[in-house]
Amino acid sequence: MTVTLSRENERVVHVPLGDRAYDILIGPDLISHAGGEITSRLKVRKAAIVTDENVASQYLDRLVDSLQTDGVETVSLTLPPGEKTKSLEPLAAVCDMALSARIERNDAIIALGGGVIGDLAGFAAGIVRRGVRFVQIPTSLLSQVDSSVGGKTGINSRHGKNLLGVFHQPDLVLSDTSALDSLSEREFRAGYAEVAKYGLIDRPDFFEWLEKNWRDVFAGGPARAEAIAISCQSKADVVVEDERETGRRALLNLGHTFGHALEAATQYDSSRLVHGEGVAIGMVLAHRFSARLNLASTDDAKRVEAHLKAVGLPTEISDIPGELPPTEVLMDAIAQDKKVKSGKLTFILTHGIGQSFVANDVAASEVELFLKETLAR
Amino acid sequence: MTVTLSRENERVVHVPLGDRAYDILIGPDLISHAGGEITSRLKVRKAAIVTDENVASQYLDRLVDSLQTDGVETVSLTLPPGEKTKSLEPLAAVCDMALSARIERNDAIIALGGGVIGDLAGFAAGIVRRGVRFVQIPTSLLSQVDSSVGGKTGINSRHGKNLLGVFHQPDLVLSDTSALDSLSEREFRAGYAEVAKYGLIDRPDFFEWLEKNWRDVFAGGPARAEAIAISCQSKADVVVEDERETGRRALLNLGHTFGHALEAATQYDSSRLVHGEGVAIGMVLAHRFSARLNLASTDDAKRVEAHLKAVGLPTEISDIPGELPPTEVLMDAIAQDKKVKSGKLTFILTHGIGQSFVANDVAASEVELFLKETLAR
Ligand SMILES: NC(=O)c1ccc[n+]([C@@H]2O[C@H](COP(=O)([O-])OP(=O)(O)OC[C@H]3O[C@@H](n4cnc5c(N)ncnc54)[C@H](O)[C@@H]3O)[C@@H](O)[C@H]2O)c1
Ligand SMILES: NC(=O)c1ccc[n+]([C@@H]2O[C@H](COP(=O)([O-])OP(=O)(O)OC[C@H]3O[C@@H](n4cnc5c(N)ncnc54)[C@H](O)[C@@H]3O)[C@@H](O)[C@H]2O)c1
Ligand SMILES: [Zn+2]
Ligand SMILES: [Zn+2]
Repeated sequence: MTVTLSRENERVVHVPLGDRAYDILIGPDLISHAGGEITSRLKVRKAAIVTDENVASQYLDRLVDSLQTDGVETVSLTLPPGEKTKSLEPLAAVCDMALSARIERNDAIIALGGGVIGDLAGFAAGIVRRGVRFVQIPTSLLSQVDSSVGGKTGINSRHGKNLLGVFHQPDLVLSDTSALDSLSEREFRAGYAEVAKYGLIDRPDFFEWLEKNWRDVFAGGPARAEAIAISCQSKADVVVEDERETGRRALLNLGHTFGHALEAATQYDSSRLVHGEGVAIGMVLAHRFSARLNLASTDDAKRVEAHLKAVGLPTEISDIPGELPPTEVLMDAIAQDKKVKSGKLTFILTHGIGQSFVANDVAASEVELFLKETLAR
Repeated sequence: MTVTLSRENERVVHVPLGDRAYDILIGPDLISHAGGEITSRLKVRKAAIVTDENVASQYLDRLVDSLQTDGVETVSLTLPPGEKTKSLEPLAAVCDMALSARIERNDAIIALGGGVIGDLAGFAAGIVRRGVRFVQIPTSLLSQVDSSVGGKTGINSRHGKNLLGVFHQPDLVLSDTSALDSLSEREFRAGYAEVAKYGLIDRPDFFEWLEKNWRDVFAGGPARAEAIAISCQSKADVVVEDERETGRRALLNLGHTFGHALEAATQYDSSRLVHGEGVAIGMVLAHRFSARLNLASTDDAKRVEAHLKAVGLPTEISDIPGELPPTEVLMDAIAQDKKVKSGKLTFILTHGIGQSFVANDVAASEVELFLKETLAR
């Protein structure tokens, strides 16, 4: 782990991707000195800021002030919040704003918001003039620990999520830990599922630390910054090994095969289930399924369940309000997501806490049986 | 030069870009055996073909037959011909076709057409699932010697040409030299301006060869294939040295600063001026301007003029039908294109035939004076 502490309470995670290397700064009140961080690290003269209504009302003025104080010309576009914003018309609007403002290759598009804004603005930054600088200022926990790191950008299509996009690494990530104070409890918890995921993938010590310290992570302060930094480091490690997702990066999908199926089965209705909640249930199921295949102990599955329950996340399919999806619907969603090849699918399984692995030959029939039993309970 | 001859009359230019390396095959009737070339070189099971009406009527069936014979499932989209097709709605339509057909990362989008179709389809291939395979089957001379090589893709915006796009190298280029037989004489000549350009940049022997053999190039047969292969090799050499255009790749803009200004001044009205014609005039002007700055001899400028005139290309601003643009309009266009920095602009100048170089400090006032004199003649 190479998380380093710079100025008071500020952590830096370096992502060593050659000529696309960048730093992630993590600390309180970073938005207020974004201008200084950006101008001292990148030669940006102009910035086109993309944000959503919820975030703009809290942080846009502060960001603009800081940039202008440091001599950066700014324009901004505030979009409606929500997943629907990850589509073609908003993308065209962002590109048009950037081009109207004559953003050049060395100028920047800045994403100020959650993963929706980050994915959209990053895609625009990847295609305007075939690539301009990109600065992420993630404001949700999920975007601070997951979507702002790794360079995946994109929008949704009527055929599915994230089907159009580019790999475009940011030039700088500023994770303002105090901005999370205005995030809803539910969104914070959903993001926390991804934090716990890093422990479960390959950092048993981190998972243990979370079991002890999660209340401090929720409360804010150094424990929160520490959890975010370790999460970023975990994701960065995987991304550096496998930037374009051909192998190991698949580990990041722990809990996501079941999770995506649940999201699809609830029609992406966020009043019933948000992504991180699906992942929480999915991680518990992945551990139980591994135990059922005699790969891991049932005690580990119970430990995962206990921790996620403690923080207030759902851990059972039956925790989802409304009618339960039948097994067939879930299996269809899994087959869609994973392209079943001659009855086999790729799944992230585990030998225990922090011992996940990519299994390429899981029998679809085994998954189906497991889901039937789970739903029958 | 490493142009190699494979089967009868087929030339291969290899573009060594590491894990993005690819081959350009050049020869007669390649469309008819495209299926074999594609399946033997890439593991493509499905292909989404993008083309335009002019090209589809001549070659689409032939391509589809060849692919299906070799077991490749195909879908296709035929768009209106012309520069307007390089815009957002057609891009969305191409992406949607590919996603509807469930094109996966190892499947391909195929561009069958000129530079418009290549730029559009290549952009789609760069963003569908964050990148799928891309096969270029360029059918205009310009696209065979220029736009199909190098990985620049894109569409236009209301703010200017090619402002949105990605770098996405093709996996294979099939340049069918017989397909050029159906190209209009005028489009062929326009593409030829770019062929001559490679000689003028840094291959004096090639320019001399063209002076002797241009009639055979226009007639078809081995001389045409040879000229295309050397052109591709020339462009590939520059691209390999400078994939993302930070330095040497600028040499490819020989004749283009004046050319673009003339295109802009004639409102991109192709009945008056097409791109290659603007480049032809621009190359003559670049050589005259270099002579005027005592960098090259006037004899060289005359030689360039004589050759381009011989093949039937325009060589004077006054060759453009309709009213002549005043100097100010041209200077404005040049300033727009090149971002004049404190009165200086970057220009491709020359010490003589095949001795072009990038000049970073050309005084805008010198260019203006030269243009005034040129227009006054
Ligand atoms: N690119 C990647 O690698 C990657 C990885 C994971 C997820 N994602 C994407 O991220 C998106 C989900 O991200 P998300 O959960 O951040 O969603 P989001 O951007 O929709 O944010 C969630 C909600 O919180 C609000 N919000 C954000 N920050 C706030 C703050 N500080 N105060 C008050 N409200 C705030 C937003 O307005 C929104 O209503 C999905 O589209 C997903 O596909 C991308
Ligand atoms: N990506 C790059 O590096 C690059 C480089 C140079 C130019 N370009 C782009 O290329 C485009 C110009 O390319 P172009 O000149 O091929 O234009 P184009 O694609 O419009 O083709 C010119 C015309 O010829 C027709 N045509 C093409 N092949 C034919 C054939 N075999 N038989 C009959 N008709 C045929 C087309 O339908 C069209 O009407 C511009 O948009 C330019 O920006 C891109
Ligand atoms: Zn996730
Ligand atoms: Zn050109």
